[in-house]
Amino acid sequence: MKENKIEDRIHIMDLDTVALDEQERAVVIIDQTKLPYSVELLHLTTAQQIWDAIYLLQVRGAPAIGVAAAMGMYVLASRYDAVTYDEFYAAFCRDKEFLDSSRPTAVNLSWALKRMEAVVVSHDKDTISQIVEALHQEALAIRDEDIWVCHQIGAYGVSLLKPGDGVLTHCNAGKLATVRYGTATAPIYLAEEQGYHLRVFCDETRPLLQGARLTAFELQESGVDTTLICDNMSAMVMKNGWVNAIFVGCDRVAANGDTANKIGTSVVAAVAQQYGVPMYICAPTSTIDLDTPTGDDIVIEERKPQEVTEMWYENRMAPEGVKVFNPAFDVTDHSLIAGIVTEYGIARAPYTESLRDIFARKQQGTADENH
Amino acid sequence: MKENKIEDRIHIMDLDTVALDEQERAVVIIDQTKLPYSVELLHLTTAQQIWDAIYLLQVRGAPAIGVAAAMGMYVLASRYDAVTYDEFYAAFCRDKEFLDSSRPTAVNLSWALKRMEAVVVSHDKDTISQIVEALHQEALAIRDEDIWVCHQIGAYGVSLLKPGDGVLTHCNAGKLATVRYGTATAPIYLAEEQGYHLRVFCDETRPLLQGARLTAFELQESGVDTTLICDNMSAMVMKNGWVNAIFVGCDRVAANGDTANKIGTSVVAAVAQQYGVPMYICAPTSTIDLDTPTGDDIVIEERKPQEVTEMWYENRMAPEGVKVFNPAFDVTDHSLIAGIVTEYGIARAPYTESLRDIFARKQQGTADENH
Repeated sequence: MKENKIEDRIHIMDLDTVALDEQERAVVIIDQTKLPYSVELLHLTTAQQIWDAIYLLQVRGAPAIGVAAAMGMYVLASRYDAVTYDEFYAAFCRDKEFLDSSRPTAVNLSWALKRMEAVVVSHDKDTISQIVEALHQEALAIRDEDIWVCHQIGAYGVSLLKPGDGVLTHCNAGKLATVRYGTATAPIYLAEEQGYHLRVFCDETRPLLQGARLTAFELQESGVDTTLICDNMSAMVMKNGWVNAIFVGCDRVAANGDTANKIGTSVVAAVAQQYGVPMYICAPTSTIDLDTPTGDDIVIEERKPQEVTEMWYENRMAPEGVKVFNPAFDVTDHSLIAGIVTEYGIARAPYTESLRDIFARKQQGTADENH
Repeated sequence: MKENKIEDRIHIMDLDTVALDEQERAVVIIDQTKLPYSVELLHLTTAQQIWDAIYLLQVRGAPAIGVAAAMGMYVLASRYDAVTYDEFYAAFCRDKEFLDSSRPTAVNLSWALKRMEAVVVSHDKDTISQIVEALHQEALAIRDEDIWVCHQIGAYGVSLLKPGDGVLTHCNAGKLATVRYGTATAPIYLAEEQGYHLRVFCDETRPLLQGARLTAFELQESGVDTTLICDNMSAMVMKNGWVNAIFVGCDRVAANGDTANKIGTSVVAAVAQQYGVPMYICAPTSTIDLDTPTGDDIVIEERKPQEVTEMWYENRMAPEGVKVFNPAFDVTDHSLIAGIVTEYGIARAPYTESLRDIFARKQQGTADENH
């Protein structure tokens, strides 16, 4: 077991949010609890370290968590001293269940762990070292798929922009929530690579401030012209004509295009409607749930009042005992959405049809070339 | 000179925000820098104390500042040991200019001070004690007018509500910004006196958090069913059908009804438009400027980035050096406003005409009885 190694003064844009150190056989993550104060890398080699990293939100964002867990299972399995398959599989299941308990509601976590377990099960006639190598390749495949999905979303998203445009984003659906490009930020990063010189506005995103702490940080680090605003300033920047497009991520998209995303997304959508700014949802197809007919069928998590009244502050900023409504997400009506950008193309209204078309393309493995 | 006296555990709804202690001849204010942690009263008897109270925002809100300055001039003048009128007037002008420097951009401050000076000038043939008594009466008149204006706005505003309604408000246009009822809160307080049992949602109002610190506090103190939300949760509460009307204050209303108010007001307006909730501006006629044709003619003050990135926090919550756009106000287009509630009635679209009617009524001194 190695101690976590800390490296300071690192430029995050040179790194993947989650990476595999092949020689050390360690999962390497950017510790997001230290941002934006300092960039520190953690090298994770034990089950407890990986569990802690997920539980403590040192790695966060559904795609990044999935990749970290997959890499983690390879890293752990590569160190088993098991001789028989049964010994190996027992150790694997023990670690898998342990990691799965780190964030029980994170869909990508259990999805990635199940996918790694399926590799073990399907290689039950192979040698231990063959199984470990299969796990190695599967973890890299899960990482590569995440990078591909985000890059595709970015490529489709760029087609919605022109050089010099202003873009607004909300919360962090950024590089820091995925391996490399993010979802909502992918069009921004790809446009910058092509010299678009965008001007990006980040909503600070109360109460957890992911926009201020994470999105503004990663965009600024990458050299994007970044301006931080409070959530209640979006109308002013849109009225001023400074925003040509809005890109946000999503937690779940219903079959009719209604989209659950970070609280405040539907406020941005209403303001965008008022000022005629198109709002795009950046959605890996893994977040589109055709079995959920509409947004009304999505249950919204409510969180602790203290996030609003106390968190981050030196002193409590509200009267004692006041009631607080603190929903973590809201649902944006499909009528307010100009397009849903997926790795297989951009869905437009009517979404009930266009999202089915996206899934048909996914089945065929063909992206839409007409973007 | 007396030391400031502090009284703890006071119920603010039993008090005026600014009051005159007749026996002590002191201006008594609720120290708003201590809210919502504790309710402390300050007894101000010297020019420096009054200047500090205004400068340090211990008293804030344009109407409350005006009343405090007027009462302050009486309190100071009552202590002059001047024998001649000229001595008295010289001392008065010295104090007046000093107080006027405490918040140079506060219109009500210089307005109230000029009005007090006019009393001195028009009584130049009277004895010192007669002048002091005239100042006493003028200060009380300014106070009473503020109370009357707010009460009238409240009475008109109540006509827009029905028992059990949900109300949303933004920032603090409350009792704490005036002597007694507030402007945007006046309909709420008057409705509660009539047993309406409203449910009120307070936007916390980033970055200065007046909604969380002040509005939530004063409403809760007065027994109103109060729920605090972040600014980006307004769409969720409106979509849930919890809001029947929105009441906000204003800093300036243009001749066409465009309204400058605390940043975020036009976000609330766009969301209200989306969900069909009527939005009302509570505006003393003193804030309606018929010489300003439209909102485009209103200059918006930008404030320090640190209010967004550092203020209130234990640690800075944004990357070093990131650009910040921090406008203090925004302009809500008249097309999004369901009505402008004044002390002389409710103006409705088209505002260019209805606001002129309001001023005609003001000239005649007749309020609209058809509400």
